[in-house]
Amino acid sequence: MAAKIISLLTDFGLKDNFIGVMKGVIWSIATEAKIVDLTHSISPQNILEGSLVLVGSVAYFPVGTIHVAVVDPGVGTARRGIAARIGTQYYVGPDNGLFTSVLAAAEARSETAEFYTLDKPEFWLPGVSRSFHGRDIFAPVAAHLANGKKPEEMGSLITDPVRLNIPSPERIAGGWLGQVLMVDHFGNLITNIKPKHFEAGKRVLISVGDMVIDGVITTFGESHPGELVAMFDSSDVLQIAIVNGNAAQRLNAKIGSIVKLNYN
Amino acid sequence: MAAKIISLLTDFGLKDNFIGVMKGVIWSIATEAKIVDLTHSISPQNILEGSLVLVGSVAYFPVGTIHVAVVDPGVGTARRGIAARIGTQYYVGPDNGLFTSVLAAAEARSETAEFYTLDKPEFWLPGVSRSFHGRDIFAPVAAHLANGKKPEEMGSLITDPVRLNIPSPERIAGGWLGQVLMVDHFGNLITNIKPKHFEAGKRVLISVGDMVIDGVITTFGESHPGELVAMFDSSDVLQIAIVNGNAAQRLNAKIGSIVKLNYN
Amino acid sequence: MAAKIISLLTDFGLKDNFIGVMKGVIWSIATEAKIVDLTHSISPQNILEGSLVLVGSVAYFPVGTIHVAVVDPGVGTARRGIAARIGTQYYVGPDNGLFTSVLAAAEARSETAEFYTLDKPEFWLPGVSRSFHGRDIFAPVAAHLANGKKPEEMGSLITDPVRLNIPSPERIAGGWLGQVLMVDHFGNLITNIKPKHFEAGKRVLISVGDMVIDGVITTFGESHPGELVAMFDSSDVLQIAIVNGNAAQRLNAKIGSIVKLNYN
Repeated sequence: MAAKIISLLTDFGLKDNFIGVMKGVIWSIATEAKIVDLTHSISPQNILEGSLVLVGSVAYFPVGTIHVAVVDPGVGTARRGIAARIGTQYYVGPDNGLFTSVLAAAEARSETAEFYTLDKPEFWLPGVSRSFHGRDIFAPVAAHLANGKKPEEMGSLITDPVRLNIPSPERIAGGWLGQVLMVDHFGNLITNIKPKHFEAGKRVLISVGDMVIDGVITTFGESHPGELVAMFDSSDVLQIAIVNGNAAQRLNAKIGSIVKLNYN
Repeated sequence: MAAKIISLLTDFGLKDNFIGVMKGVIWSIATEAKIVDLTHSISPQNILEGSLVLVGSVAYFPVGTIHVAVVDPGVGTARRGIAARIGTQYYVGPDNGLFTSVLAAAEARSETAEFYTLDKPEFWLPGVSRSFHGRDIFAPVAAHLANGKKPEEMGSLITDPVRLNIPSPERIAGGWLGQVLMVDHFGNLITNIKPKHFEAGKRVLISVGDMVIDGVITTFGESHPGELVAMFDSSDVLQIAIVNGNAAQRLNAKIGSIVKLNYN
Repeated sequence: MAAKIISLLTDFGLKDNFIGVMKGVIWSIATEAKIVDLTHSISPQNILEGSLVLVGSVAYFPVGTIHVAVVDPGVGTARRGIAARIGTQYYVGPDNGLFTSVLAAAEARSETAEFYTLDKPEFWLPGVSRSFHGRDIFAPVAAHLANGKKPEEMGSLITDPVRLNIPSPERIAGGWLGQVLMVDHFGNLITNIKPKHFEAGKRVLISVGDMVIDGVITTFGESHPGELVAMFDSSDVLQIAIVNGNAAQRLNAKIGSIVKLNYN
């Protein structure tokens, strides 16, 4: 059998030794686990961003992958830690809504999901700190999952995992009001607008601040360097981009900025 | 047999989940591949920089290593994707010149090189996007190579891979005009000047902007903190550095800045 | 037997291919080694910071782990390279004090430590450069350790490894003068103040610049976003933090900034 894969998604950044230490903990328990970094650059304590990046990633991993996600402003409070089986994969992290998008996507596919609150300290590091449950609880629980332990052996079933309210585009006269949910490395603006918000055969104007884009292109190669364009990205959501440039800087846009669709 | 090594070099940065997702795709196909990041901080869409970093890396990897390189401003256009066997290693990425330096180095050693255009979609992810061939085409092709498939099974032979024009130092009266090709993490300026541009036994003055350096040192330890020095780096090209400091900032130099050698 | 783990800690950053190349060298020699990045963001040439991050990491790795640490302003000079057995783990890097904190912690636990100066070039890459011993000496030596070679086979015993002078809090009338040793990704200030500097049952005021904090909290969850707090971190040293904010920016504090404890 292939070694189990454990993915890590956090807002810890790469400056400190936090991620290296989590891997030491995992390999101390599950010597053959394969570990992959999804990203550690989630904006500090931005649970929504973590949730969206996670749901855009998990489909590319095999059945049985264990995803550890830690964006955890409530660490050290009464918020629960959870292990979940959602569809064919496993999830470990704080119960603060971080798994909302993965859960919603699974429900849309009629897949099952079970959540367990982590309440069995014998599966944690001894002497759990109040500020680093990624190392002390979530990494060891993920490693035990990789070793074949089941979520239900390490926690008690819960039916009320915390869910985030993820903003959807709003219907307005003649179009939709969407917003920027993320900004990627290239400065592209990732919105909450999807193909279903477009009306076939109609001309659409897309506005961000004062700038207006006329229609959607299908590939950067159709446009000139420096041009402002809108296109569906590799996850099939609308992104606003500058060809070979940085749209977030040029448009002074950020998470929450309004993106308007107008049909004529 | 040891598991195959797959290296990744991109301009995707580490902010997003792009690299993690590529690794998920690779491990979904080649469960035992070992994956290593060369760098994901190539300047956005700088094919020349990607080419130079790649050629400075591959000699340190064993026979049979598979290098995936994605600096790909033309993604989604008609530019070809390629898999290549160059010397004893494999290369996968866009056909835009990214492998020029590796190819030139192989030719200088009289090694063989074969290029194949990737035209067999059965080796790709289903539903290839127009903006992320690293995930949809290059990662799966690399994984199949790790599993023992041959480049010629996944593409058709081509004899005209795209080649970049890499700037060489220019002969001038009394010396050479070189330039800065890269700036590293420490702010050291990596030039295109090599030992062959130096004349044994002659005093040389090296100029960058208004600053002049008298001769080449062999190690930082010969100089004082803050001193501006020239030395051959670990890849045997001339670098300009500030001892314990940042030369790019102090000299206001960047890629393309002129570096002049004068012999007296 | 499980594959040996090799950890890497450097000040090389992630912009360049340095780390990827070191991994290529390791896997060329020790094909089954598992490699983990502790961090590559040690402040350039800050040996003290490297030493402190290392000692805060190693307890989370299993017996036999090999830690390669390279913060090496003296590379290319006469400074020695070393391999060491400290407690149950191995260490490889320059002999400049980088292992001081690990050694002090081992001595405090009455564990043994042996240091060997690396003087057998047959275990290095051929043609060692003067500027990149991480690649040319330390990576191959670590790989040979992973393959079962012993430190004493690759070097000669020394009894005088270089030790740093790590600043400790200073006793003053009514309290202690400590200082900031590190700043983490979240802008939290990591100090050199430990539980032993606190007097049970007494009220303590903690000052950083003009700001005064009244007492120590046990978890962020007790405070409000934006509040300035002091707490013991996951390594049991005092940290100064802004709840959901960046203390280093707000207090204009950095490594070396004074943190004062006053008892009333």
